[in-house]
Amino acid sequence: MQYPDSRKYAAEFIGTAFLLAAVVGSGIMAETLAGGNAGIALLCNTIPTGAMLYLLITMLGPISGSHLNPVVTLVFALRREIPVANSLGYAFFQVTGGLAGVMAVHLMFDLEVVQYSQQLRTGYPMWFAEVVATFGLVLTILVTLKSNSRSLAMTVAMYITAAYWFTASTSFANPAVTIGRSFTDTYAGIQPGNMPAFILSQVTGGVLAWLLCNWLLVQRTHR
Amino acid sequence: MQYPDSRKYAAEFIGTAFLLAAVVGSGIMAETLAGGNAGIALLCNTIPTGAMLYLLITMLGPISGSHLNPVVTLVFALRREIPVANSLGYAFFQVTGGLAGVMAVHLMFDLEVVQYSQQLRTGYPMWFAEVVATFGLVLTILVTLKSNSRSLAMTVAMYITAAYWFTASTSFANPAVTIGRSFTDTYAGIQPGNMPAFILSQVTGGVLAWLLCNWLLVQRTHR
Amino acid sequence: MQYPDSRKYAAEFIGTAFLLAAVVGSGIMAETLAGGNAGIALLCNTIPTGAMLYLLITMLGPISGSHLNPVVTLVFALRREIPVANSLGYAFFQVTGGLAGVMAVHLMFDLEVVQYSQQLRTGYPMWFAEVVATFGLVLTILVTLKSNSRSLAMTVAMYITAAYWFTASTSFANPAVTIGRSFTDTYAGIQPGNMPAFILSQVTGGVLAWLLCNWLLVQRTHR
Amino acid sequence: MQYPDSRKYAAEFIGTAFLLAAVVGSGIMAETLAGGNAGIALLCNTIPTGAMLYLLITMLGPISGSHLNPVVTLVFALRREIPVANSLGYAFFQVTGGLAGVMAVHLMFDLEVVQYSQQLRTGYPMWFAEVVATFGLVLTILVTLKSNSRSLAMTVAMYITAAYWFTASTSFANPAVTIGRSFTDTYAGIQPGNMPAFILSQVTGGVLAWLLCNWLLVQRTHR
Repeated sequence: MQYPDSRKYAAEFIGTAFLLAAVVGSGIMAETLAGGNAGIALLCNTIPTGAMLYLLITMLGPISGSHLNPVVTLVFALRREIPVANSLGYAFFQVTGGLAGVMAVHLMFDLEVVQYSQQLRTGYPMWFAEVVATFGLVLTILVTLKSNSRSLAMTVAMYITAAYWFTASTSFANPAVTIGRSFTDTYAGIQPGNMPAFILSQVTGGVLAWLLCNWLLVQRTHR
Repeated sequence: MQYPDSRKYAAEFIGTAFLLAAVVGSGIMAETLAGGNAGIALLCNTIPTGAMLYLLITMLGPISGSHLNPVVTLVFALRREIPVANSLGYAFFQVTGGLAGVMAVHLMFDLEVVQYSQQLRTGYPMWFAEVVATFGLVLTILVTLKSNSRSLAMTVAMYITAAYWFTASTSFANPAVTIGRSFTDTYAGIQPGNMPAFILSQVTGGVLAWLLCNWLLVQRTHR
Repeated sequence: MQYPDSRKYAAEFIGTAFLLAAVVGSGIMAETLAGGNAGIALLCNTIPTGAMLYLLITMLGPISGSHLNPVVTLVFALRREIPVANSLGYAFFQVTGGLAGVMAVHLMFDLEVVQYSQQLRTGYPMWFAEVVATFGLVLTILVTLKSNSRSLAMTVAMYITAAYWFTASTSFANPAVTIGRSFTDTYAGIQPGNMPAFILSQVTGGVLAWLLCNWLLVQRTHR
Repeated sequence: MQYPDSRKYAAEFIGTAFLLAAVVGSGIMAETLAGGNAGIALLCNTIPTGAMLYLLITMLGPISGSHLNPVVTLVFALRREIPVANSLGYAFFQVTGGLAGVMAVHLMFDLEVVQYSQQLRTGYPMWFAEVVATFGLVLTILVTLKSNSRSLAMTVAMYITAAYWFTASTSFANPAVTIGRSFTDTYAGIQPGNMPAFILSQVTGGVLAWLLCNWLLVQRTHR
């Protein structure tokens, strides 16, 4: 038995909405409460994000695969594990779901519903950071699926928990997240003009990880 | 083999008591120690709450289902998985257990045993936040039970960990918790007069999640 | 196959040594680094303690049961799951292991090896807190063993993580830990004169939990 | 089926690169953001390190065993579970992978790619701390492999999480990590001249744990 496409799209929409709500909402709360300590703010943005990823992948995985990320969907399309038409549907519902999540957060925190970020995030080091961040994310997904697929929710959550801190960009690693974060002028925002380079870097990182895995995950055949 | 009703009620009483003890007690300790940094205070309230939820659901689940929350019990009654009479018993022991937990904390911290909160938590954004918070909680429970029921304790704990930060109300999402928290004039308190709107919002969110799941979790039948 | 007594005693000695090292060592490091913020200090004492408990119970459980706590050993003796002679051996190696762990920490941090704490921890609220803390710990152990024994390491680690914050005493809940902590005049210390009342409270809480479980965990027999 | 050596070496290289990236990168981010609070800095260095270890061991374990540490490889060579030639290959790719990870972090954070640390970490207490830290790490690995091998990723991650705080040296416990950290003049650095004594201490701790386990893990034979 399998879920029909409508349920898969709904799962991607709902999941990406909650993911963005966690990222943006906890960013607002964390910055408000942290009293100017940026370390506490990022820590209190990291923990809810990792927690949310764990539960979304655990519960939505059996429905839609819980991609929640157009680069992940692209990689599964390259692996021919999702038809092209469906992959476009996935990306559409990921992006719109992410926007819905951001707007819901603005409503909850009594802010303007539609906003545009003014936060500058650009430059070669940032772009390299996004390549590395997305490379690591897709590597984590593909290797875990081969090695230990039942642990996928935890490895992805732990990866993003770490990547918030070791990549200079705090690891967006997801075009739907990047687009959503350009529509909030709060802690997690990114200026819309900085978006395309981030997304290009993310696609690059994801494709590189896919290429590496095509080689890395080939086992020796019995002789 | 199954546990008799007396054990189920006891499990709901004990579990909700420890849940409220964790919420209220860690709130007192966190606020006392945080030296005025509200970010540290909420983080040190979040981590014990998530930890406690994980263990209560893990250990009490096989006894009573570990609802610990009248909205959760209501949803299981709507699903006809618990008889109406039992569901009223559950709600009674959840609320009284929660009150017992709050009083035990007051005794441990050498405070007045019976208190009423003066903390204002009201307004449309807060109520919408409670709708979202409880919608997400019930969604997490119902989808996890279908997708990956052995992970329920962890997904619920992670959900509340995230929701403390991304919902503007810090996610009460539970009428027994709301009532218990109105009886403490400490960090986690809520003014008794603000209680009814919170509970109404929670019921709304829970029922919406139940309605969504009636559609979302229907798989394609074999043809 | 089973481990001989010598290995069981060694496991209890090593395990309690590492437990006390984590509690006392992280307390020293946390207090030193926290810059006077007591919330950060306790958080940075909590996380290593919970982490250490998880790994010790996971890895030593199959060898000795990983009691690491004379009250836990007492309760298993009351349940006749460990012979009285062995339970005395367990308690002896728990206490001496704990002392060894404290001394190793003092060596690592270049402090006097043998110290006595001057930290006052006394009074009815503290004692009640220790009754509650140990009641909850033994309840967690006994109910998890019945409901979901493979999750024991995680439920105990999560319990202590929570109890550091919701009990006014920061949850010693363990006579071997209490004795060890009286031999360090650092963050985690307790004045030797305050020790007996703590231990008495811990035994009381543990026995109460055992009595409760004798009733709570009886399932309905088939009719 | 098994992975060929080339994949095993690649796994050790990639894994140690990400491990060092997490350690050094999160150290830079944490120190930058912590506003001078050293407790927050170390906490925000600890959490990404533990998270990264969990995912690397989970996903790379089935490929290479995920040693990521020359002392761990040495111990498996002593146990004759890896041929000597392969163990040298492992160590080579661990060290070079670690250096690559450090350099990638410098690129992401727009710093000099090749640096030498000036941070002093020396003296008997530090060396004893490294003996203890590595003793505990190898003990955790060997005992978990015997008791509960599916939990290895979590026990190791939790061990390092704790050891960052209870050992006075913040637990390097890994020669590849030590070498990598000597090539960064940032938060996590160690002066190259202090490296040899750290590595000697680590080897000592690892070998002691191996010797202990040769005795500790022998079960009683059936009679």
